[in-house]
Amino acid sequence: MKKIALASLLLLAVLPLKAGKIVTDSLYSSILSETVKYNVYLPDGFADSGKTYPVVYLLHGLSGDYTDWVKRGSMKLVADELIGTGEAVPMVIIMPNAGGPDVHNTWNGYFNMPGWNYEDFFFRELLPSAEKKYRCGGSKGLRAIMGLSMGGGGSVVYSQRHPNLFSSCYAMSAWLDNKEGELRRKVDTVDKLYYVRESVIEHSALDFLRDASEETLEEMRSVAWFIDCGDDDFLVKLNMDFHLLMKEKKVHSELRIRNGVHNWEYWHLALRLALPFASRNYSR
Amino acid sequence: MKKIALASLLLLAVLPLKAGKIVTDSLYSSILSETVKYNVYLPDGFADSGKTYPVVYLLHGLSGDYTDWVKRGSMKLVADELIGTGEAVPMVIIMPNAGGPDVHNTWNGYFNMPGWNYEDFFFRELLPSAEKKYRCGGSKGLRAIMGLSMGGGGSVVYSQRHPNLFSSCYAMSAWLDNKEGELRRKVDTVDKLYYVRESVIEHSALDFLRDASEETLEEMRSVAWFIDCGDDDFLVKLNMDFHLLMKEKKVHSELRIRNGVHNWEYWHLALRLALPFASRNYSR
Amino acid sequence: MKKIALASLLLLAVLPLKAGKIVTDSLYSSILSETVKYNVYLPDGFADSGKTYPVVYLLHGLSGDYTDWVKRGSMKLVADELIGTGEAVPMVIIMPNAGGPDVHNTWNGYFNMPGWNYEDFFFRELLPSAEKKYRCGGSKGLRAIMGLSMGGGGSVVYSQRHPNLFSSCYAMSAWLDNKEGELRRKVDTVDKLYYVRESVIEHSALDFLRDASEETLEEMRSVAWFIDCGDDDFLVKLNMDFHLLMKEKKVHSELRIRNGVHNWEYWHLALRLALPFASRNYSR
Amino acid sequence: MKKIALASLLLLAVLPLKAGKIVTDSLYSSILSETVKYNVYLPDGFADSGKTYPVVYLLHGLSGDYTDWVKRGSMKLVADELIGTGEAVPMVIIMPNAGGPDVHNTWNGYFNMPGWNYEDFFFRELLPSAEKKYRCGGSKGLRAIMGLSMGGGGSVVYSQRHPNLFSSCYAMSAWLDNKEGELRRKVDTVDKLYYVRESVIEHSALDFLRDASEETLEEMRSVAWFIDCGDDDFLVKLNMDFHLLMKEKKVHSELRIRNGVHNWEYWHLALRLALPFASRNYSR
Repeated sequence: MKKIALASLLLLAVLPLKAGKIVTDSLYSSILSETVKYNVYLPDGFADSGKTYPVVYLLHGLSGDYTDWVKRGSMKLVADELIGTGEAVPMVIIMPNAGGPDVHNTWNGYFNMPGWNYEDFFFRELLPSAEKKYRCGGSKGLRAIMGLSMGGGGSVVYSQRHPNLFSSCYAMSAWLDNKEGELRRKVDTVDKLYYVRESVIEHSALDFLRDASEETLEEMRSVAWFIDCGDDDFLVKLNMDFHLLMKEKKVHSELRIRNGVHNWEYWHLALRLALPFASRNYSR
Repeated sequence: MKKIALASLLLLAVLPLKAGKIVTDSLYSSILSETVKYNVYLPDGFADSGKTYPVVYLLHGLSGDYTDWVKRGSMKLVADELIGTGEAVPMVIIMPNAGGPDVHNTWNGYFNMPGWNYEDFFFRELLPSAEKKYRCGGSKGLRAIMGLSMGGGGSVVYSQRHPNLFSSCYAMSAWLDNKEGELRRKVDTVDKLYYVRESVIEHSALDFLRDASEETLEEMRSVAWFIDCGDDDFLVKLNMDFHLLMKEKKVHSELRIRNGVHNWEYWHLALRLALPFASRNYSR
Repeated sequence: MKKIALASLLLLAVLPLKAGKIVTDSLYSSILSETVKYNVYLPDGFADSGKTYPVVYLLHGLSGDYTDWVKRGSMKLVADELIGTGEAVPMVIIMPNAGGPDVHNTWNGYFNMPGWNYEDFFFRELLPSAEKKYRCGGSKGLRAIMGLSMGGGGSVVYSQRHPNLFSSCYAMSAWLDNKEGELRRKVDTVDKLYYVRESVIEHSALDFLRDASEETLEEMRSVAWFIDCGDDDFLVKLNMDFHLLMKEKKVHSELRIRNGVHNWEYWHLALRLALPFASRNYSR
Repeated sequence: MKKIALASLLLLAVLPLKAGKIVTDSLYSSILSETVKYNVYLPDGFADSGKTYPVVYLLHGLSGDYTDWVKRGSMKLVADELIGTGEAVPMVIIMPNAGGPDVHNTWNGYFNMPGWNYEDFFFRELLPSAEKKYRCGGSKGLRAIMGLSMGGGGSVVYSQRHPNLFSSCYAMSAWLDNKEGELRRKVDTVDKLYYVRESVIEHSALDFLRDASEETLEEMRSVAWFIDCGDDDFLVKLNMDFHLLMKEKKVHSELRIRNGVHNWEYWHLALRLALPFASRNYSR
């Protein structure tokens, strides 16, 4: 008894007064014919407030899964701190599964591929289901997207193709194309890794931008864009090229090249910038 | 075969070119009558260089252990990045065990207590053994200390009592005294938690400073001090009081009150400041 | 002709696309029986928008004047940049005169003194006049205050005494009391410097807080507070004491002790934190 | 008397304990056939120490002059603060004149042009004279260079052409080439502005790198490089291109794209990064 009390006391001393919580949930997808897991961050006070929150979709990278941001990206600590000071607004954060470590035999990717129509799943099943269940989003002004590497590419491409659905897009070390990719040159087996690589070429964020009509560009201008990539990241050139092309097309985007490589130290610090960015761009 | 090659390729793409490595080691202590584990970070190039490196002792907190900084504090990512840019110099980082989660039945603490003379162990056994084995330290100018909470207190008290051994001391959210501690008031069982609390009172960093002779103060002035504590940390008043007392005693110390509480988000970011601080203060 | 064109071209190349402008204005005060100058920052688009903006009062320090923030604090560059990225919202920034370099013969100070009722002037004359003329403020939710040193003290005391008028208060290196002040001990001439010093004692922010009724504290809790002071500032102890007292009284306040002394490098960087803080705390 | 004492007292309260000082000096150049002014920052303790200090050359931009960094870039505040904490080492900072606001009739530029052989002046006259007079530099290991815009380009090109003279080079918003420059297209008068533009084309840092022999590249690798440019700077593409070319040529360079445009807010903050970078790269 006493020991339990003491342990609790120790715990209380180190916790912030206002902490959100992580819920693990899942959804059966008719499109993918399987159950897809996701983690959700619910901000402090969620249960009792009854109100609708802004939502951000926070995407993991290739060979990762829905637990990455929680386990490796310290997302709960970051969200608790920034919401605590008001640098981020209270929001629901949804981290859906789109992969796994065995990249040859597990589907990875955010786009439609032969046999894995993830983009359809995301917009037709996950988004409406999760936003209803967790009282969040419901409109462009209350919805943002962000992610790392493959998830950074996913965020950008989703925002390009569905600009009416997202108020902001924050891309970390984003995999924006794969035509000159190191990865591609070495592949000759047609397995699940092959398909995700091909899908990144087909959904090249740079090609989309190059070919975009003025109407499409005008829609893209309604999204707030942020590109963030390490100076020693193997994807840095792609991210620079994308920024310059955005400039040329007069779609405003923030760009940051900070110190770093393609790793969790970079993404952890990126999240500290990304949640405030999304917060500033929700409509009021 | 191919799959292995591909997996390696993926891995290579995301690693920095120069990465240190973590070694887990242990030492039988005659003083403690038990084997004590520790983690060591060896910088890139260590094996082949043959030279002697600076060393920093990086201490965990109450109810933690020697794996904390690696598993929860991202210390390897931080060290690799900062050494990579030159913000920190290549150094050996030693993370000794001084506790465990079952605080009632496991010894926690850096000071001498009845039946657990950890300070003796640290200076007589661990330090000479580890510095010899890992070609590091050997003198004040090549040795630093830092730690969080109980380990922050340990760092400060060790540096007060052995100023001729450390060139710098960086204290994170340091437990510097316990006379008015929240924790103490609730304890009546004489168990191992009791003893560590008493030891923190007996080794109060504030009392030491208040009572220090001018000679002792002069020795303290040969150490570079840095106090870093969150504005919502339950220990923030102790850290402010210590800084003001240092000022009064004319022992220069840096102070930072950043946003935060007593948690790993704070300490992870603190380490990004602490390794460069230690690096600047090694003698050249 | 050509030379003018070229000069313009050079200029255009270095200017941000969206820049606010500084207007110098003045107001005859019946209360002070003199004309008081002030600078105003009007955000990009102000002239044509027709809408009402949030306002912040940005106060200078002892021996300074209304031009300081523009000339020495780089306030225009900071505001343009932060409003440009959305880290700060477009707002009107009013910098009123409350002093001058000849501290013995020129009135300095934000409080009522014998012969210089500045607080009355501020709330009865300046605030209504400027907010009407520059389409800003008009309510607590659209009004903030911040300042340095004597102006930091002014900001805190105004927010304590008029909590229904300000949504947030950001104090930089604030002169919050003067009972133990270095400055006071050396004065024996009853001149204008004498009066401002006495006024800071009479308007001690710490005394106010110590003596505040629960009702007053509850009103203070409706303001967002931020205390920011350098670790080597001669006023750092006062600021720490104030923060601890706020904590004790359960009035939430952010605290930052960054590196630095009582100078413009500190305040310039503080402004980069202060404008976003005010922005987050305007009501929406 | 009393007033003077009081004024001094006020002043003392706000100054850091250890402050460097700015000296304005000049040098008659036989090469340029005129007297060239320069500002020098001498660190605290310089006069009495008798020792030789590291030196950094800090260069201004087009249409600026030797007073810019002091008057507009807050260089003294930055240097005092960073040397005070040890983030920068005590060093001499030399700010030579290489221009003026009337760009059509005043020589601007760091390169040799018809009638204005500034590079010759810099290396044959200024450098030896200033380093002797101010007890600094004397070797690559104790010499660094940095600058903004035209001075950023100057720093890079000097380090490319004289890699044996500089331990590090920090380029801020650097004007690295002018072949596609906005400025160039509009010029048809052959005046002094024309010559500086042509000189930037002739001394293109990108062309130099493209054409460099392996021997030259190997010499370039002995310099520590840092490229820093705002994401909305009109020169950002040039800086990205340079970084990518450096990567391709395997000459390591740090790159940062921070928020900002071509202005003093950017350069002021850049200097806070640049002085520590130079400090870390002086040889010990």
